[in-house]
Amino acid sequence: MADADPRLYRTIRHASGVDAVAIEEPLEIRVDGRPLAVTMRTPGNDEELALGFLYGEGLIDGPRSVGLTDDLAKNTIEVAGPLVREIGARRFYTTSSCGVCGKGALEEVAVHSAPLQAGPSLERALVAQLPDRLLQPAFERTGGLHATGLFDDRGELLASREDVGRHNAMDKVIGRALIDGLVPLHDRVLCVSGRLSFELVQKAAVAGASILVGVGAPSSLAIELAADRGLTLCGFARGPSVNVYTHAERVLTGAPR
Amino acid sequence: MADADPRLYRTIRHASGVDAVAIEEPLEIRVDGRPLAVTMRTPGNDEELALGFLYGEGLIDGPRSVGLTDDLAKNTIEVAGPLVREIGARRFYTTSSCGVCGKGALEEVAVHSAPLQAGPSLERALVAQLPDRLLQPAFERTGGLHATGLFDDRGELLASREDVGRHNAMDKVIGRALIDGLVPLHDRVLCVSGRLSFELVQKAAVAGASILVGVGAPSSLAIELAADRGLTLCGFARGPSVNVYTHAERVLTGAPR
Repeated sequence: MADADPRLYRTIRHASGVDAVAIEEPLEIRVDGRPLAVTMRTPGNDEELALGFLYGEGLIDGPRSVGLTDDLAKNTIEVAGPLVREIGARRFYTTSSCGVCGKGALEEVAVHSAPLQAGPSLERALVAQLPDRLLQPAFERTGGLHATGLFDDRGELLASREDVGRHNAMDKVIGRALIDGLVPLHDRVLCVSGRLSFELVQKAAVAGASILVGVGAPSSLAIELAADRGLTLCGFARGPSVNVYTHAERVLTGAPR
Repeated sequence: MADADPRLYRTIRHASGVDAVAIEEPLEIRVDGRPLAVTMRTPGNDEELALGFLYGEGLIDGPRSVGLTDDLAKNTIEVAGPLVREIGARRFYTTSSCGVCGKGALEEVAVHSAPLQAGPSLERALVAQLPDRLLQPAFERTGGLHATGLFDDRGELLASREDVGRHNAMDKVIGRALIDGLVPLHDRVLCVSGRLSFELVQKAAVAGASILVGVGAPSSLAIELAADRGLTLCGFARGPSVNVYTHAERVLTGAPR
């Protein structure tokens, strides 16, 4: 078993005994000195988090130089610009108006992403097993973290990250992939330890992943967005079974079901 | 078993069969015609969600008249003002700068809330059972929703709500309590179906709840905020066991452990 990153948790004493708890702290992301966003995250791999977040929002199109400011204790991270587009062209949907409407909701809250390529095909049994291949050593200690893993088309784990926020865990993995020159992730598979929300599908699609797998349930809007973007969305992946909600052509069934 | 609210889920057909999936759609909250926030939520009880959200952010101090605008299809809800404070005096921490720093993080991201009263005391065994008393009929169908329940000091369920967002489920319950004149919730207990984040502790503390119980793990910042605000925070409540992280004086141990 992999060792847990000591930045992710701490041991506390309480009335019921002693526990390892996941650390949650705010991180302010600044671009060219300008405050952009604050996220509640688990420390560790903050550069990856910042890059993955900005890429997912369509604000950068590749890695940027990133620096922790003098005041690391301040939980602030500086990213060098320039940005691809003006901040505010699409506002962050959790936070401010975007003029959503029923029919146009997807368009209004969605970040633009290019149509996905054909992408890889994986055996159904392998897809169902991916969650078992996610490394979650800090979760095993605390029970309080989500994980995202990046896999190649043979199901080999390329990177995995843990965070109290499931969106942060995915941002960190995508930020890592950006730094390593792996984006767009056409031949890669992302796998998350929990449920599949609109937000996670969007981040995966923007990064160009062809297949997104989750241990938990998808939401209606996650399925709609995945169908629209050409992403293969798989939920309830609990080997040997998995549900394939969209673009099932990338999931191969070895034997007749 | 309670029937699931048909607004919360829909049945879809996919490559693996037929599934009931939790509905996720954006909701724009407007105050006096001014767009304030967009949240990804499960439809149903939107008035409660809007009121609970605004109360949790310290923007209103009691119920307000709420109307769905002409364009219900637009997923927009109108709340009458006035607001207690200017929007922007504290910016939403998921979204924009709040000048966070290590030492001062709690102060910077926290909404002001009055110190909690003494509040009720509950038997430990009862606290550990509360999650079993949460009604989650739509979760049972979909696997894709979080729940929050409001209980009295004898463990009787007063209200419960489900949503794809755990923060929304709590906002809905607190909005319901506002409408029913039950806030501040000094003599009441809140219980959530998942993990305990900073954000959930903050919402519970602002609403004046004395005890917050979760099925899952607390984060470090959730524990710090609960300790600071006088809230009793209980995690891993899986009857018969529960961990009490802060202010254990409200949890009574019948027999020596």
